[in-house]
Amino acid sequence: MPSVLWILFDGGGDRPSGGKTPFYVAFKPTIDYLTSLGSCGVLDPISPGVRPGSDTAHLALFGYDPYKYYTGRGAFEALGADVQLKPGDVAFRTNLATVDDSGTVIDRRAGRYIAPEEARAVEKVLNKIGEEVGRKYGVEVVYKSTVEHRGVLVLRGAVSHRVSDTDPHKVGAKLLRSEPLDNSKEAALTAEVVNEITRRFSEAAKELEINKTRRLEGRLPINAILLRGGGYMPQIEPIKERYNIKAAAIAGVALIRGVARAVGMDVYTAPGLGGTKDDKFDEALKLAVELMARYDLVFLHVKGTDSTSHDGDFNGKVSVIERLDKSLAPYLDKLLSNYLVVTSDHATPVSVKEHTGEPVPIMLYGPDVVTDDVAKFSELTCWRGALGRIRGLDVMPILGSYLGLTEKFGE
Amino acid sequence: MPSVLWILFDGGGDRPSGGKTPFYVAFKPTIDYLTSLGSCGVLDPISPGVRPGSDTAHLALFGYDPYKYYTGRGAFEALGADVQLKPGDVAFRTNLATVDDSGTVIDRRAGRYIAPEEARAVEKVLNKIGEEVGRKYGVEVVYKSTVEHRGVLVLRGAVSHRVSDTDPHKVGAKLLRSEPLDNSKEAALTAEVVNEITRRFSEAAKELEINKTRRLEGRLPINAILLRGGGYMPQIEPIKERYNIKAAAIAGVALIRGVARAVGMDVYTAPGLGGTKDDKFDEALKLAVELMARYDLVFLHVKGTDSTSHDGDFNGKVSVIERLDKSLAPYLDKLLSNYLVVTSDHATPVSVKEHTGEPVPIMLYGPDVVTDDVAKFSELTCWRGALGRIRGLDVMPILGSYLGLTEKFGE
Repeated sequence: MPSVLWILFDGGGDRPSGGKTPFYVAFKPTIDYLTSLGSCGVLDPISPGVRPGSDTAHLALFGYDPYKYYTGRGAFEALGADVQLKPGDVAFRTNLATVDDSGTVIDRRAGRYIAPEEARAVEKVLNKIGEEVGRKYGVEVVYKSTVEHRGVLVLRGAVSHRVSDTDPHKVGAKLLRSEPLDNSKEAALTAEVVNEITRRFSEAAKELEINKTRRLEGRLPINAILLRGGGYMPQIEPIKERYNIKAAAIAGVALIRGVARAVGMDVYTAPGLGGTKDDKFDEALKLAVELMARYDLVFLHVKGTDSTSHDGDFNGKVSVIERLDKSLAPYLDKLLSNYLVVTSDHATPVSVKEHTGEPVPIMLYGPDVVTDDVAKFSELTCWRGALGRIRGLDVMPILGSYLGLTEKFGE
Repeated sequence: MPSVLWILFDGGGDRPSGGKTPFYVAFKPTIDYLTSLGSCGVLDPISPGVRPGSDTAHLALFGYDPYKYYTGRGAFEALGADVQLKPGDVAFRTNLATVDDSGTVIDRRAGRYIAPEEARAVEKVLNKIGEEVGRKYGVEVVYKSTVEHRGVLVLRGAVSHRVSDTDPHKVGAKLLRSEPLDNSKEAALTAEVVNEITRRFSEAAKELEINKTRRLEGRLPINAILLRGGGYMPQIEPIKERYNIKAAAIAGVALIRGVARAVGMDVYTAPGLGGTKDDKFDEALKLAVELMARYDLVFLHVKGTDSTSHDGDFNGKVSVIERLDKSLAPYLDKLLSNYLVVTSDHATPVSVKEHTGEPVPIMLYGPDVVTDDVAKFSELTCWRGALGRIRGLDVMPILGSYLGLTEKFGE
């Protein structure tokens, strides 16, 4: 049974801006060789012109309409942080921050560096507060620290994500009260819970040992938690049931791991997959090829193309693509008898440094896939290929058909 | 900040019919030069094969699903006639006509020629009747004459567009009674109001000075008003809110002005833009380029391609395109650092003389747009371009992404 290796360059798409694009310039002989044997096209991750986030784009690419399933970033971020969510759970992204005595935000990241043991201490305090407040209001509360100042706060019970952020999103503004955004009991309760946790944490922070130490060292105290991006965990039919495809995802980025987990993919990581321009892909591809023996589809997320794009670093972006290709080269023989998909979740042109709405190139190689005239994977060439212009939601059904796994519609 | 100039040739699309199309034949070096630098494709104004009206096509092109927002032609016609409509207002297109003593229509246009002072006299009478009838039924009534026999009748209050036409749509048939098309109170009331206005106008017409004069001159009297195409003014989110794009439209045709105004575009006109095959575009393009300094998007409507198509006038259609291009030439330098879109709202093949459902060519030029192989703007060439096949509703999101103005969906 063949299986699919799907390599996704996050933010890999680009604009020519008077010259060539990183995909066009990058020396990537393995991808381009398989491109020359396969079909190419352009892909609108959501629909033409729509500027996708990585979360909504991945939902669509995994075959789930984001207009139906995207319920705010919080839930996907929490899943990525290995918090087990149940449908209906509400999750927020959180920052540990510093406020002054009047509640005005001085630093949205509490001086940026937070040591792992400090994060653990805060986690303990916040979970204690969460337990007390949760008991009072009849909900379950979990706080989990992820990286540095970042974390997630999860509420379970008769709660709603329809409440406003407490994060003022800028320095110099006051920590906000969360307000219900609709007239439901659940939203009112959620806002109360959030506000009480917020208030109690700032109080408790005064007595925290780590803050005493931080003050002695001249560092900013961790005395506020800022909540944003509330979302609820949707009811999602697992990918195995929906497309009859057993899928694994290899990703280092919490948000992508969360989306993959939400749709029921098994999630792996690999050394070297940090999400920076210096990522290394040997281990990730070794794992990917191993997993191909056990899965119908192995998805590999490459973050470095997006990070370099946000920095406006054209050469850095080229280098990420080239390094991935080099790590892929040893598996060419293996790939020849399987399927390879290469695409991106959205364009992040280095000239713009933000996600844009142009379609991204896509290539599909397989022993039984039509060979078109395109021999180079890029924005400047793939549009003339045999796949034409397709959408994110089309990819999984296409792969399911080649794998022979999806159901026939009708007789 | 770059902005977009969008030139739309109404009914510009055509069929080869064994030869070449007007777009293919027309000598249009400026459009074709920018085409050679940009991306091309074909565009289904609504969806493949659907024969659009100009109103529904423009709604879709401006980013509003016509299946949701198109509520009959009357409302858009009234807007185009500079009648200020509020959501819920009901408007009809009207003809001033001649009926005989039995109420049978002799001429649907009252002998076609109606002098402006005659139209004003009728306007006065109809608004007086409208005021009286409106007071009786508790609604507001406005009649406005537009061109010759054409006008609009607007009702405001507890009214409905779900009533039948009084216009029998042919000579020799009787003026019809308007009947409610559903069981609502509003439809019943509207039919009564319409019927009473219709009856009273025919009565009042007997005493009208202008009719005495017309009879003396051997001309047909204006003694009936025919209503058709009732529509209500929908609630439409302005384009600035929906797409964050500040947009202006330059158009001479009432219906297009109405659609543009309905979606919240600022509407301009220019000398020379009459909608005939003799239109001149120097002033319109001068204004367009001026407006580009103040707007993100400037839309220019060219009617002559449709008028010549309805006449089956191939050479006339070619000439309209060539004249537009010639007037565009002085602004080539200016355009090079901005965006240009050229397309059509539907095909009106000169061989058919009616709107048809084929896709129309579209080109998009911009400094950061992919250059494909297409160097001539036409039905015979654009299908091989990098845009592939897109839909009317896709255009605004695509432009919004290039302008960097639209919101990201997700994170």
